[in-house]
Amino acid sequence: MDQKSTTLSKKKWGFRGNSELQAEPETTIRGALTLLMSNLNISDDRPVIPMSVSEPSAFPCFKTTQIATDAIAEAVKSSEFTSYPPTEGILPARRAVAEHLSKTLPDKLSPDDVFMTMGCQQAAQAILHVLGGSKLNILLPIPCFPYYDVYARSSRLEVRYYNLLPDKNWEVDLDSVIAVADENTVAMVIINPGNPCGNVFTYHHLKKVAETARELGILVVSDEVYAHIVFGENPYVPMGVFGSITPVITLGSISKRWLVPGWRIGWLVTHDPDGILKEHGIIKSIQQYFHVSTYPPAFIQGAIPDILAKTNDEFFSRILNLIKESANSCYEGIKDVPGITCPNKPQGSMCVMVKLDISVFEDIKDDLDFCVKLAKEESVLILPGVSVGLRNWLRVTFAIDQSYLEDGIKRLKSFCERHSKGA
Amino acid sequence: MDQKSTTLSKKKWGFRGNSELQAEPETTIRGALTLLMSNLNISDDRPVIPMSVSEPSAFPCFKTTQIATDAIAEAVKSSEFTSYPPTEGILPARRAVAEHLSKTLPDKLSPDDVFMTMGCQQAAQAILHVLGGSKLNILLPIPCFPYYDVYARSSRLEVRYYNLLPDKNWEVDLDSVIAVADENTVAMVIINPGNPCGNVFTYHHLKKVAETARELGILVVSDEVYAHIVFGENPYVPMGVFGSITPVITLGSISKRWLVPGWRIGWLVTHDPDGILKEHGIIKSIQQYFHVSTYPPAFIQGAIPDILAKTNDEFFSRILNLIKESANSCYEGIKDVPGITCPNKPQGSMCVMVKLDISVFEDIKDDLDFCVKLAKEESVLILPGVSVGLRNWLRVTFAIDQSYLEDGIKRLKSFCERHSKGA
Ligand SMILES: Cc1ncc(COP(=O)(O)O)c(C=O)c1O
Ligand SMILES: Cc1ncc(COP(=O)(O)O)c(C=O)c1O
Repeated sequence: MDQKSTTLSKKKWGFRGNSELQAEPETTIRGALTLLMSNLNISDDRPVIPMSVSEPSAFPCFKTTQIATDAIAEAVKSSEFTSYPPTEGILPARRAVAEHLSKTLPDKLSPDDVFMTMGCQQAAQAILHVLGGSKLNILLPIPCFPYYDVYARSSRLEVRYYNLLPDKNWEVDLDSVIAVADENTVAMVIINPGNPCGNVFTYHHLKKVAETARELGILVVSDEVYAHIVFGENPYVPMGVFGSITPVITLGSISKRWLVPGWRIGWLVTHDPDGILKEHGIIKSIQQYFHVSTYPPAFIQGAIPDILAKTNDEFFSRILNLIKESANSCYEGIKDVPGITCPNKPQGSMCVMVKLDISVFEDIKDDLDFCVKLAKEESVLILPGVSVGLRNWLRVTFAIDQSYLEDGIKRLKSFCERHSKGA
Repeated sequence: MDQKSTTLSKKKWGFRGNSELQAEPETTIRGALTLLMSNLNISDDRPVIPMSVSEPSAFPCFKTTQIATDAIAEAVKSSEFTSYPPTEGILPARRAVAEHLSKTLPDKLSPDDVFMTMGCQQAAQAILHVLGGSKLNILLPIPCFPYYDVYARSSRLEVRYYNLLPDKNWEVDLDSVIAVADENTVAMVIINPGNPCGNVFTYHHLKKVAETARELGILVVSDEVYAHIVFGENPYVPMGVFGSITPVITLGSISKRWLVPGWRIGWLVTHDPDGILKEHGIIKSIQQYFHVSTYPPAFIQGAIPDILAKTNDEFFSRILNLIKESANSCYEGIKDVPGITCPNKPQGSMCVMVKLDISVFEDIKDDLDFCVKLAKEESVLILPGVSVGLRNWLRVTFAIDQSYLEDGIKRLKSFCERHSKGA
């Protein structure tokens, strides 16, 4: 190459990073966490208290069952799962998920209703991509697990928000759903048991959600990654129960109930007794999505039948008790902390929304400022509400080791006292 | 709900499957395979001969090494890998990949140059998404592994094709690269060792590719999923060697060399000694991509250091010998088959392009027709050239059990003889 062209080319590299990927850091959980963690004070000798992510598996008391690890080890050693699996998932895994979910449904699911995914996260990404298209819109709750917003945007879906009502235990504000929907609305997303609110919808309320969706001609996407993680008044009711009112797509995974989010396996399930999803090309598009996308490693799928069928109730109830205790001490502990209030006692999932009264504080600008300073001064990580769509709220994950939680609440209290006006 | 609204809503479901996902089935490998398999004659008692996908792992002789399965089983049992991993991958895995690749590079890679992916496939999807943006274009070879086309389109990249030259052992036609590139071109993709051509680029040729890319101000995306699977004259040279001429992104995985495509783990690696990718926001965008995307299960990443460091040469050379033998018998066998010719003896990867002379046949319309009839009549699966962008060629995968291969070639021969004019 001659000198001239070298100099020329140095100036004119034509590429640059995709601007769609340049989101504000605090609008994704990973982004917010990275920000908070970069603010930790490394000379603080106390352990960091992670009340920011729902992955209790980091603590020994929240270890997964040996049935699950053995199932994976056996599957990988069997040599049966080295080849590319079918893109929608291997049949035994799909059948196992269908049977597992059918236990709490009026109608039996078929393996064909199930697609294996990389956790509930990819299930969310998949269905939003499948529903995407220009001019269309989707309804998301406020507050919401933030990935839905990201996936909707990257699927060219306009996002419209409906409210969850803190005064009604975070039920869906159905009037706001009707107000924002129009003829280009394709679906509404609900998360039940709720992240970030820690609420659990009643049967009666879910039925009303289904009826509203039917009236609007939209489907319901139900994120049930926290299925069965309920410890309050309301039992867990799968949205699929109402599939004959309006088509329902259920998203789930083993991440939370089995305490293995790092294993990245979940499912996308269609409840379509009247064949409406099929008729509208949704099933076909889901298949096509997986033809060109990633899917879970074959041997992890191979372990799913054992994991779902063999895990015993003793494991589930022990874990549930731990989470319930933590939820209670979190709720009780926060009552003593100035400047924050918890409108509803958590009934499910692993986290709860807490309202910040900024006026109480001397030198805290907003929720993000609160969380950054809390990380810096107390080595406690809590997610700012802005990350889930509610400014000046906080999302507190309580599903951590009990002694860490108590320590965390103590530090939170002294932080709030120290920063209160006139402290 | 009253009768009126029920009737109303029945008519007006507003959703439908994303039209972007409605590709012609034969333009994805999975689509073409599904089509071929639906044409298999179930009353044919002979085994199906799968000369259509590069996954020899289905045959006992191509079993992976126990070092790999043990590494996974140990990682999952260690309980160290149940939590969400960092989205770019866990440090030990990134470090292991950096060290592994650095062995054949002039400059040492750092773990920061490595992102862990769901196989080479997600690495391809990731980089095309990162480079995407309206008005931009990317250069793909003809023929090409078809996912690049799919990912380019879904990333809003216009696709422009450059030729590979069958008469020059499938080297890049650099004149055609220069002819189709313009100031909106961001990158060119090469696949080396080559799928679908079975070719291996020389050091000298790769250097010219790099120089051409530099002159055009574009980067080179080098798919090296078949790294080290070479058995002809030309040694494998990683494109990263030329990272100081133009920025290079290398995509790879353990799928092929370790015979575990079902495990879905690979990497995206940046060779950016002059910081050009960083300066243009590419590194940042790659990080952001993984913040909102899927990534390999933590324990599979946890097994990567052992898999890469401990697998012994005996395993690699035994497998390579098997593949080489198969490549030779495929090449020699095809010489005797009327109507098809193989312009170049395969030197690498697991497949080769074979030219179809349609005029030889009585009743074969084109390559797709050829492959459908071959599946139906002989239970032999071969990919039509149209799936990789070359009509009236065939892509033949030879990396299968030797006895199956011989049987497959025999059936192919009798098929071609039977359909020849005047047969
Ligand atoms: C509401 C919700 N949906 C989806 C996910 C992702 O689940 P998975 O880890 O199975 O991908 C999470 C994880 O925290 C979640 O809280
Ligand atoms: C050229 C090429 N790139 C990428 C891939 C995908 O590799 P992986 O299975 O590691 O995702 C393949 C698989 O056959 C391939 O041939």
